Amino acid sequence: MTDRRATKTPLALSQRALRSTDQPISYLMAQAVTNPHVISLAAGFVDYETLPGEALAEAVARVLADPRGARISLQYGTTEGLKALRKRLLDHMAELDGATPEALGATIDDLIVATGSQELLFLITGVLVDPGDIVITSWPSYFVYTGTLQAAGARVRCVDMDDDGMIPEALERTLADIEAAGELGRVKIVYIVSYHQNPTGITLSAERRPRVLDVVRKYSRDHRILLLEDAAYRELTFEGDAPPSIKRFDDGNEFVATVQTFSKPFAPGLKTGYGLLPRDLVGPVLDQKGNIDFGSANICQHLLLEALESGAYERHVEKLRQAYAAKCGAMLDALASELGGRRGGEVRWTRPRGGLYVWLTLPEHIDTAGGGEFFRRCIAEGVMYVPGEYSYPRDETRERPTSTMRLSFGVASVEQIRQGVARLARGVRAFE
Amino acid sequence: MTDRRATKTPLALSQRALRSTDQPISYLMAQAVTNPHVISLAAGFVDYETLPGEALAEAVARVLADPRGARISLQYGTTEGLKALRKRLLDHMAELDGATPEALGATIDDLIVATGSQELLFLITGVLVDPGDIVITSWPSYFVYTGTLQAAGARVRCVDMDDDGMIPEALERTLADIEAAGELGRVKIVYIVSYHQNPTGITLSAERRPRVLDVVRKYSRDHRILLLEDAAYRELTFEGDAPPSIKRFDDGNEFVATVQTFSKPFAPGLKTGYGLLPRDLVGPVLDQKGNIDFGSANICQHLLLEALESGAYERHVEKLRQAYAAKCGAMLDALASELGGRRGGEVRWTRPRGGLYVWLTLPEHIDTAGGGEFFRRCIAEGVMYVPGEYSYPRDETRERPTSTMRLSFGVASVEQIRQGVARLARGVRAFE
Repeated sequence: MTDRRATKTPLALSQRALRSTDQPISYLMAQAVTNPHVISLAAGFVDYETLPGEALAEAVARVLADPRGARISLQYGTTEGLKALRKRLLDHMAELDGATPEALGATIDDLIVATGSQELLFLITGVLVDPGDIVITSWPSYFVYTGTLQAAGARVRCVDMDDDGMIPEALERTLADIEAAGELGRVKIVYIVSYHQNPTGITLSAERRPRVLDVVRKYSRDHRILLLEDAAYRELTFEGDAPPSIKRFDDGNEFVATVQTFSKPFAPGLKTGYGLLPRDLVGPVLDQKGNIDFGSANICQHLLLEALESGAYERHVEKLRQAYAAKCGAMLDALASELGGRRGGEVRWTRPRGGLYVWLTLPEHIDTAGGGEFFRRCIAEGVMYVPGEYSYPRDETRERPTSTMRLSFGVASVEQIRQGVARLARGVRAFE
Repeated sequence: MTDRRATKTPLALSQRALRSTDQPISYLMAQAVTNPHVISLAAGFVDYETLPGEALAEAVARVLADPRGARISLQYGTTEGLKALRKRLLDHMAELDGATPEALGATIDDLIVATGSQELLFLITGVLVDPGDIVITSWPSYFVYTGTLQAAGARVRCVDMDDDGMIPEALERTLADIEAAGELGRVKIVYIVSYHQNPTGITLSAERRPRVLDVVRKYSRDHRILLLEDAAYRELTFEGDAPPSIKRFDDGNEFVATVQTFSKPFAPGLKTGYGLLPRDLVGPVLDQKGNIDFGSANICQHLLLEALESGAYERHVEKLRQAYAAKCGAMLDALASELGGRRGGEVRWTRPRGGLYVWLTLPEHIDTAGGGEFFRRCIAEGVMYVPGEYSYPRDETRERPTSTMRLSFGVASVEQIRQGVARLARGVRAFE
């Protein structure tokens, strides 16, 4: 046995496997385990205190009270998801837009329930993207999806954003450049986290939504480019009104696939997401889903339907909005008092009106890279962040900024947020 | 809007999407919906009456009773799965083999929890198989995995089986043929449903297990060929002792990945499976899982851990064994009385000692194809089966038998099984 191990014949991995790397976040998770005293402003986890244990216990009691209902929830479901839940979610998405399903040009057949919204990002990418195809994202963008694109062999081109989100003129320039290079035929997806973006906390403004979509329509010459709208943080809007979805502007349900999740506004442990897709994308996506799990956990779908119907879901979201508003406020206050007014604004941060994240830009000479000198100093001070570098996809036309970071107010308590920012500020001062 | 719909720009689907088709079972499900009076001996669903509603209610009560425990189960988990569950499952797999984890050469780091065992079949295939690579299966084989192979672009070569499962000498001949054709480098996986196979109900005999593995080892010349052991039905052995897993013979945990599931022995609605993998396959598989769902539903994992620890799981499996033994007996009795002794054994069927399926072979002139004349006659008689054709992968060196079918005693009651087989027999007599 020892001999065999010593002379192990190698595995022959696929191209997909060879393209893939583990998510950079693994490094941070290992750091967190090794340094339990550290306050994590890195984790994208949601607030523990507000997880809906009671709401769920009630939903479980109701679902399992009826023996027949219990059994149906424990049996296999369907690949596309529980019909009653899909109907409820279609209404829910329309309500969020102050519209009807008809006004969205959508029916229940266009809505799919999935194993988290991430599965839909994976599936949609899989049915559209061949190795070498181009996907356009904002700069920066959500790093798990960047990993998915890398595994798919996509080439990524990035578009600048400002405080109103992706800049439509910049998107148009990027597409024009790609067309000039004769590669428009390879562009398959424009990906936008449209509310309180991960990592910046920035929302694409209402005014820009139809304009971004118009650019996508305009460059959909020989084939349709899909605008993949990731609305994971939509319902966590705690200040002002959330703008309508990009999907709301997609007459005829043709160019936009919008994915949402229960992980952020309810509970990640149920690992359930959903998406509203152009009709002709539904079949191909379900074909692939049939190869992965042929349907997401049925019991979770029954529990979520119960929570939606009883009103427990909406009550919980309202509670979350208040909790995150308070925590975000604490983070912004702490940043202002600890790092505000430094050398004419060298240190800058975003002011999210929802979601879980603040994006911090430090003076250029501070390199925030994972495992670097500043990162290690922060660990020593007792605080951890997500290095901004992880959120910049590899775009051969761009150079990654080195002084940014993502801070999350999701898991940490108000007191931990204050302490964490104070520790971070000590780290910054040490590098002046 | 109407105009836009009329002139819709086409989507440009990926090669993967173009290779894929919907699972043939979709046709059967549509038939079942359209013909609600029909007794389905087709569905691979498990028995409704024995789904563990009470066991689950108890597990839920215990998990949610502790507010902290409730919250942990509702938070994100890890990509590889809940550590305590993985430890318990490693012990469980070893116990089923009457061995220790050490004897299997395995540690907790080699065990992954997934969104059903199907996700592991998908992931493992994805990290080993490029389009054009070869995967070897039995003839017939599990049709959902056949669809997964088609989407992956694999070429499938099939190996004959008899009442003792895949024939080692036939596997060796197939590999020798492939080697002679200079294509051994393309062979990545040998796939075997090793207990009460879907669709035949046949178990690979204890005596053949090390021999099949030896053949795989022998032909692993420049790279390792993975023996992918699908043990989904292992715990549903209701007659005699189940043989040890193929994994049990894999000294050093090198050549065999064994996947199991909670869907068959407990509840499909929890959509949770697990697999014990060669160590160097774990990282690549987790990298891909990070792109799909970065961890399966955490709450389901907590509930299953609770059910395992309380003994509810083992009690439930025992109850299931008795229920399926009775239903299998009813099906075999009905087949004997309705179709036994016909024209010198022209009608044959398997005699499973576990699982959910009986494989029936009719006289050659009866074509069992889905939607065909005989199929429609059976629908008219009020019974549905899975046409055998679905279970034969496309293998360019073989021609599909046309007179076989899969019957399931999973969902139907004993009375429905009797009636269903009687209706089927009427269909057969009508074609004499």
